[in-house]
Amino acid sequence: MELLEERIKKDGVILGKDVLKVDSFINHQIDVPFLCELGKEFKRLFEKEGVTKILTIEASGIAVACIAAQYFGVPVLFAKKSKSNNIGNDLYSTQVASFTHGNVNNVVVSKKYLNENDRVLIIDDFLARGNALMGLIDLCDQAKAEVVGCGIVVEKAYQGGGEAVRKRCRVESLARIAHMDEKGIEFVH
Amino acid sequence: MELLEERIKKDGVILGKDVLKVDSFINHQIDVPFLCELGKEFKRLFEKEGVTKILTIEASGIAVACIAAQYFGVPVLFAKKSKSNNIGNDLYSTQVASFTHGNVNNVVVSKKYLNENDRVLIIDDFLARGNALMGLIDLCDQAKAEVVGCGIVVEKAYQGGGEAVRKRCRVESLARIAHMDEKGIEFVH
Repeated sequence: MELLEERIKKDGVILGKDVLKVDSFINHQIDVPFLCELGKEFKRLFEKEGVTKILTIEASGIAVACIAAQYFGVPVLFAKKSKSNNIGNDLYSTQVASFTHGNVNNVVVSKKYLNENDRVLIIDDFLARGNALMGLIDLCDQAKAEVVGCGIVVEKAYQGGGEAVRKRCRVESLARIAHMDEKGIEFVH
Repeated sequence: MELLEERIKKDGVILGKDVLKVDSFINHQIDVPFLCELGKEFKRLFEKEGVTKILTIEASGIAVACIAAQYFGVPVLFAKKSKSNNIGNDLYSTQVASFTHGNVNNVVVSKKYLNENDRVLIIDDFLARGNALMGLIDLCDQAKAEVVGCGIVVEKAYQGGGEAVRKRCRVESLARIAHMDEKGIEFVH
């Protein structure tokens, strides 16, 4: 998606070969009208899939998932990273290792909100090693829900996660990074 | 706001006198068209305030903040609950005790995205003891940003947080709970 690639080139900050900061417009400060354009593109890509629910994971996936959900007219469900004292015990649960935070989280959704009638579009801001997506797919498998695909804002295509997840379901990434370093960034086209 | 009070009576789940679960439509599964109605009401309440930025705290504040931001045409900034390895070191930081999770979090925003020219509307899903709001107000004070007010979805008016925060700034809560137990719920009007 050219609009996104141009914005990443303009406002993204590259640290070494692994970290792309997009915290001025996606995952700390959020440019909501810009996210609306991403949401419309996800709708265009998945409009024939009969999506009934958008699933994401807290925290930075929530913004893009909610904005996209407006175009699909379906609810969002966000997986929670720890069991708080008021989510209840009737949960699907999986383990997700976080590249960004360097830890492993227990990730849960309430059984009430995901079931065998759901056709789920998973949305997240980043795809690197694929741990978060595989965890969300596992939650859908436990619920016997159908995963129609994953919609990703930025995929670091050289980290292998996309390849692994594509063996399981359709993945559409709005920008796919082939290579980056402090000299610049190249996208897969 | 009658629409919200009716929805809470219909779909909220009361556990004892302290916990109101609204996880079927606000903070786990999210009814996005319903949040749009809340967002429009925040716009009506604060439209004369010249808001330049909406500030919230991860995770469950992000959805309502992003939806509301569409009506204000301003960016969202969400405070992060722990210092991840790619947010940078140039941060405003404060401590927030969580009623829901029973712990204390270091809460941060990047100095780049909050400054003395900002007129900030703080948005969150719940107001109980007021710890999160006081933390967000502290971050704005550090940045010398002006807090024009707080927009809250559900205030538990009997827990004292609203009283404390109103000494500092305007607070508009779309539903204010006077009392609740397993027999029912009463709102402040």
